[in-house]
Amino acid sequence: MSLLHTINSPADLRQLNRNQLTSLADELRQYVIDSVSKTGGHLSSNLGTVELTIALHYVFNTPEDRLVWDVGHQTYPHKILTGRRDQMHSLRQLDGISGFPRRIESEYDTFGTAHSSTSISAALGMALAARTKNESRHAVAIIGDGSMTAGMAFEALNNAGVYDDINMLVVLNDNDMSISPPVGALNRYLARLMSGKFYAAARNVGKSVLPPPMLELARRFEEHAKGMIVPATMFEEFGFNYIGPIDGHDLESLIPTLQNIKNLKGPQFLHVVTKKGQGYKLAEADPILYHGPGKFNPAEGIKPATAPAKKTYTQVFGDWLCDMAATDDKLIGITPAMREGSGMVEFEQRFPQRYYDVGIAEQHSVTFAGGLATEGLKPVVAIYSTFLQRAYDQLIHDVALQNLDVTFALDRAGLVGADGATHAGNYDLAYLRCIPNMVVMAASDENECRQMLTTGYHYPGPAAIRYPRGAGIGAAIDKELSSLPIGKAELKRQGNKVAILAFGSMVHPSLLAAEALDASLVNMRFIKPIDTEMIKEMAASHDAIVTVEEGCTMGGAGSAVAEALAQAGIVKPMLILGLPDKFVDHGDPALLLAQCGLNAEGIEASIRHRFF
Amino acid sequence: MSLLHTINSPADLRQLNRNQLTSLADELRQYVIDSVSKTGGHLSSNLGTVELTIALHYVFNTPEDRLVWDVGHQTYPHKILTGRRDQMHSLRQLDGISGFPRRIESEYDTFGTAHSSTSISAALGMALAARTKNESRHAVAIIGDGSMTAGMAFEALNNAGVYDDINMLVVLNDNDMSISPPVGALNRYLARLMSGKFYAAARNVGKSVLPPPMLELARRFEEHAKGMIVPATMFEEFGFNYIGPIDGHDLESLIPTLQNIKNLKGPQFLHVVTKKGQGYKLAEADPILYHGPGKFNPAEGIKPATAPAKKTYTQVFGDWLCDMAATDDKLIGITPAMREGSGMVEFEQRFPQRYYDVGIAEQHSVTFAGGLATEGLKPVVAIYSTFLQRAYDQLIHDVALQNLDVTFALDRAGLVGADGATHAGNYDLAYLRCIPNMVVMAASDENECRQMLTTGYHYPGPAAIRYPRGAGIGAAIDKELSSLPIGKAELKRQGNKVAILAFGSMVHPSLLAAEALDASLVNMRFIKPIDTEMIKEMAASHDAIVTVEEGCTMGGAGSAVAEALAQAGIVKPMLILGLPDKFVDHGDPALLLAQCGLNAEGIEASIRHRFF
Repeated sequence: MSLLHTINSPADLRQLNRNQLTSLADELRQYVIDSVSKTGGHLSSNLGTVELTIALHYVFNTPEDRLVWDVGHQTYPHKILTGRRDQMHSLRQLDGISGFPRRIESEYDTFGTAHSSTSISAALGMALAARTKNESRHAVAIIGDGSMTAGMAFEALNNAGVYDDINMLVVLNDNDMSISPPVGALNRYLARLMSGKFYAAARNVGKSVLPPPMLELARRFEEHAKGMIVPATMFEEFGFNYIGPIDGHDLESLIPTLQNIKNLKGPQFLHVVTKKGQGYKLAEADPILYHGPGKFNPAEGIKPATAPAKKTYTQVFGDWLCDMAATDDKLIGITPAMREGSGMVEFEQRFPQRYYDVGIAEQHSVTFAGGLATEGLKPVVAIYSTFLQRAYDQLIHDVALQNLDVTFALDRAGLVGADGATHAGNYDLAYLRCIPNMVVMAASDENECRQMLTTGYHYPGPAAIRYPRGAGIGAAIDKELSSLPIGKAELKRQGNKVAILAFGSMVHPSLLAAEALDASLVNMRFIKPIDTEMIKEMAASHDAIVTVEEGCTMGGAGSAVAEALAQAGIVKPMLILGLPDKFVDHGDPALLLAQCGLNAEGIEASIRHRFF
Repeated sequence: MSLLHTINSPADLRQLNRNQLTSLADELRQYVIDSVSKTGGHLSSNLGTVELTIALHYVFNTPEDRLVWDVGHQTYPHKILTGRRDQMHSLRQLDGISGFPRRIESEYDTFGTAHSSTSISAALGMALAARTKNESRHAVAIIGDGSMTAGMAFEALNNAGVYDDINMLVVLNDNDMSISPPVGALNRYLARLMSGKFYAAARNVGKSVLPPPMLELARRFEEHAKGMIVPATMFEEFGFNYIGPIDGHDLESLIPTLQNIKNLKGPQFLHVVTKKGQGYKLAEADPILYHGPGKFNPAEGIKPATAPAKKTYTQVFGDWLCDMAATDDKLIGITPAMREGSGMVEFEQRFPQRYYDVGIAEQHSVTFAGGLATEGLKPVVAIYSTFLQRAYDQLIHDVALQNLDVTFALDRAGLVGADGATHAGNYDLAYLRCIPNMVVMAASDENECRQMLTTGYHYPGPAAIRYPRGAGIGAAIDKELSSLPIGKAELKRQGNKVAILAFGSMVHPSLLAAEALDASLVNMRFIKPIDTEMIKEMAASHDAIVTVEEGCTMGGAGSAVAEALAQAGIVKPMLILGLPDKFVDHGDPALLLAQCGLNAEGIEASIRHRFF
């Protein structure tokens, strides 16, 4: 590690000789492996960007030139080279550095990323700002082939391609995968570009048509055709100057190419081919397994979990999806590029004809589901709470407005832990319950999650079921597919004085608080329609109402209870507990919930403080 | 009108001889002009789709085959041919037919559209549903070149292009414009395709390189190149079979082409060139003026308004934008393809270097603004409330989370009248106030709108100002650019017993109600941060609190007041007035508001009913 320890900023890097960079890359790669094996985090993607990161910081004058890393989970090498090497041990932990770029963390993190496909838009803003201010800095977006399938990236290409006087570069980091295996026509197209068959085919046809003496002419014709007539690639059709594909692990290609590009005006597009997991055999062999591992021994690799842990909600969903599909051939399962994350691997294997991975395309996924629903099929869209934000208009305009029968399985609702604020599913209750025709549920345990999925599936309009990241309380799960009565809450504990109305993941800690306080405890189950009768009963028989939810209090479930009380003309002291009105950073979920007062002790303390 | 009156369904149309269709087209075009001139509505786009509509219904077996019209404002010929000819007089009026396709209106309206770029996703759902159910029906999406710039359309193309066994056709209706003039690289590309220069250029280069005897070889080479080697168009690169461009007003091209396509398997792409306003000289000459006119005399055309009417909020925004830009060269104005609708024509003329029309690309518009803001510029995103739904994730993840200084000018907030439920801006208060770092305001009159825009602009984080469609109350507008204190409400009337807390457009009718009831009236101004002090004062000095907003009550502004009371430990009877939890149909805005109880009389009656 003799070289890496001398690099405390990209300025140090730029002092090195070109021939030292390969050694640096080796050290940097090893540092990433060691570091991630101790903290957990993203691995495959970071091993794939070691050389690219070195080359970009070596050629561009960062932070004066702007690098915007799409998705941002591949920025560990970038963090290590930009002064955060010694903080890598705190990665994704409470008060530690983030697993994504963050503007408040470093001047080298020019734009916070985590959701996919935002980088070209942000970099174009920076490039046009430089033009406006007569500054000559460059803006560089680095985007993966998976991220290119999201429409937003195309919107940005379409806009950027008309400005021929900007200093802007898009680097397509083509590693032939997003988190799930690649899908879609664009992927096939990139594979064609990459394999070189594109021009090879042209040459071969030329040879078969033309007699040997004409080959030279054909070659000249071909060069003209390549350079002048037919836009060589889709990206040129969008107005970019396309260069590539080049080997993204070869610093001897990367650096001179980037140096040349730096002198070109107008939107540039560099196609770089990398390999996820590069340089660590186990990750190369299984980049999905090594996409986001926990701690592991680098010499031994990831070991299968020994004792079967409690089921995660994701597994509960995956099991339900298969069981329901087995009973109803109208069920269609849809994922926007999150087969593993959403627990759909088994479903794909067992029901390949009814499985659709539409790519990183949340908007399309929801309207596509709407189209299926108009034909009497029963689509289930499995999507993280935070990513449904990207299909909000489609949910309103294409599904809810037409009251179409689409079931939304919202994983990762509430705080998500190590991924932090960008991935938090804190707003779904607020942004969903304001939409007419929606049924919105929050699961308090694994069995109820299964029941709610069944309930939403049978409900003949749009329904959303939210459940948290990770494992539940370990509730036994019924095999049968039973429904819950819509809009009905469950009284779990009859107590005195205070009635706690809890939602989803907060039912269990609230029950502990209720026992400590001898309070009543209701599992509300439904955020919409809310159980107005239960609310009235509780108000009539208690001195105060407390609501508890793992979501924003502004406009959330507690707010629904407050509205119900007001509209019923009931006047009753009320306390609304939930997540604070701020973006909650990354860290251990239990610690974060405790900080927000949303563990049993915190709930009890808040109620005591107000009503005892 | 001898032919048109015999057509009560597409089955009747399919009984006609091919040679009768041109006469039918003439009658249909005239019927559209007459009809729209009496009701108002969309004109230019409908004149452009007369022949295409006839051809599609003639060739395809509707409603068994599915037509999905993107945006849907070009479906008047479709409505006339599908049994709704005699209802065209009721277009866009209360209890009349909609200006867009609606599933509940006709079995020929297979998918409700109004927002742009949803059609390919929906049609793909239908096509894959047919495959799943072993049905041979076709699904056809008809999409304009403007709509193709939205990323969602690309997400759908990317997904559709891999299914080579579906009966699906995308018709690109290329009329070289969206509502505003065309922008973006894609438009340039389509213009290249359309002009035929694409292959002409290839031929010319071939000729200059090759000696005369080689021309035949070159021709053969060229044909190979065209057919086999190089994907001819971007759409082929996405896996579609591309046909075109053909003249979309020539039934003799359209019908045989569609008949041929009908026999092809896999995703088909037909590029049709039409002219907005076709067949009506005035509309051909100024398709933007005739995009969505009110009533007019077809012989005379649209007359300039005689007496200067009250300013619309859109004009108030446009004036403010120019005035602020004149004082601050950091201001950047951004529109997603709504230059006219958002009042930015003058701004573009005066400040072309700071004006960005990014295309129908709401997602990109917001993150692009975020990128500009990171460089110290001050972007103002002018966007309809309903369309901001499409950039919700970008607002959260790219702007609010990073607390970037972006101002959102939200036009068409609340009910929008003739456009109906698809365009209603009813949810913004709920979906914005739950997001940390946001400042959210609602303007009660024109002058306050200007003040709020200034306030939001100077606030160094994300701020949204909502204002309604159309004209305000006629308030005098100060020339100066003054700010309001953030989070402070305004007591407009001191009364007794009941305190009415009104938001935005509801301040004026609520004041009338307050006078009738001798109630107090507060103009709340801010939804976030809400004026907790004012709420406490009003609660302390009155028997009851009433909130009034032109937005959904679930999670909306009244809900914010209920939360504030609960969290302050205040117990007080409360009534929350606002829009009902249903999608409100099209119709005259004043009538609709009255139906919702949101005029002065309705507000007074609700309060009397509850508290008097």
